[in-house]
Amino acid sequence: MKIFQKQISLTPKPRGFHLITREVLDQIPELSDVSTGIAHVHIKHTSAGLTLNENADPSVRRDFESHFNRMVPEDTSLLEHTLEGPDDMTSHIKSSILGHSVTIPIFSGQFNLGTWQGIYLCEHRNRGGSRKIVVTVIGS
Amino acid sequence: MKIFQKQISLTPKPRGFHLITREVLDQIPELSDVSTGIAHVHIKHTSAGLTLNENADPSVRRDFESHFNRMVPEDTSLLEHTLEGPDDMTSHIKSSILGHSVTIPIFSGQFNLGTWQGIYLCEHRNRGGSRKIVVTVIGS
Amino acid sequence: MKIFQKQISLTPKPRGFHLITREVLDQIPELSDVSTGIAHVHIKHTSAGLTLNENADPSVRRDFESHFNRMVPEDTSLLEHTLEGPDDMTSHIKSSILGHSVTIPIFSGQFNLGTWQGIYLCEHRNRGGSRKIVVTVIGS
Repeated sequence: MKIFQKQISLTPKPRGFHLITREVLDQIPELSDVSTGIAHVHIKHTSAGLTLNENADPSVRRDFESHFNRMVPEDTSLLEHTLEGPDDMTSHIKSSILGHSVTIPIFSGQFNLGTWQGIYLCEHRNRGGSRKIVVTVIGS
Repeated sequence: MKIFQKQISLTPKPRGFHLITREVLDQIPELSDVSTGIAHVHIKHTSAGLTLNENADPSVRRDFESHFNRMVPEDTSLLEHTLEGPDDMTSHIKSSILGHSVTIPIFSGQFNLGTWQGIYLCEHRNRGGSRKIVVTVIGS
Repeated sequence: MKIFQKQISLTPKPRGFHLITREVLDQIPELSDVSTGIAHVHIKHTSAGLTLNENADPSVRRDFESHFNRMVPEDTSLLEHTLEGPDDMTSHIKSSILGHSVTIPIFSGQFNLGTWQGIYLCEHRNRGGSRKIVVTVIGS
């Protein structure tokens, strides 16, 4: 059994949902030495999230953005914590609904995901900048 | 410390929320050899999810279905990714809200869950078929 | 590689969102011996949840409470499972949206969280009482 942890910085992304599987994998080449394990991928922010979803059709990511804007409306008359603008509190709420980490099974040196599964960065701020991710891999 | 991983196939379930704790446990008898650990249960799909919730009263699962249909409405005029029908994009959204995996503490060869906690398969598609699950257990 | 698991009881909290990072840390002094690892923090209930979010401004926690009350309305005419009152079924739903556990990276004997991240107890019941938490730490 072994463990390693790595902090990586994502390139800045515009508000919306972004497929980052390749960007994450490129920074953890050590994965190829793990036969069976789990990878915990954690985002160190409270206004962006991580989730798994469909990795092929960009319209899925656009629908995520429009649905979450309806479900968590930027109505500052309903919210108290709005100092940094109308996308401030809604980003906190969206990130907790979607979650701040994903845990992914590893098998034979690779993510053991479904064919259509990829990692999404859920960028809820209008200008979120570069986001920090911590990847912890535990396995044999 | 040891680790094992197993892929299992669930029997097909109709759209809705289903208690699958027993179906999962039956396929991982190795659990009884783990004194302290965690079990990561992952679904390899983007249109169904996994969560933990109340394991006794079937009305809880029915209310989950009706609430999520209201909260994520099948209104194709609002969504772009609808090629496979009105339950296509909403299934992607619901699965990310509920999550694609649950991590469960293990103690003394058993899931260390609360009395009322069970694993739910959240089947969001009208015809989702058999779903593939990957269970990874790490422990002593 | 080592593992340990501990069950802790939180002091009873009123309905709402509560920062519990310190209360959890105080009960796992063993963390200081872990150089690299993960901590899985699990709540053994189906009407309260755990999430990570902003650890500084109490207005964030108040906005969480008001948003979730709008998003999951206590409208008993729409729900079947209401035997324990209007906060019964909505608590089950909210807890699955927010999640029943958080997994936190550990580095150098401490939680490797972002500057602004803390653990929230999401108490959805009007009178939830003391909540049981299971912390499992795996690391080197």
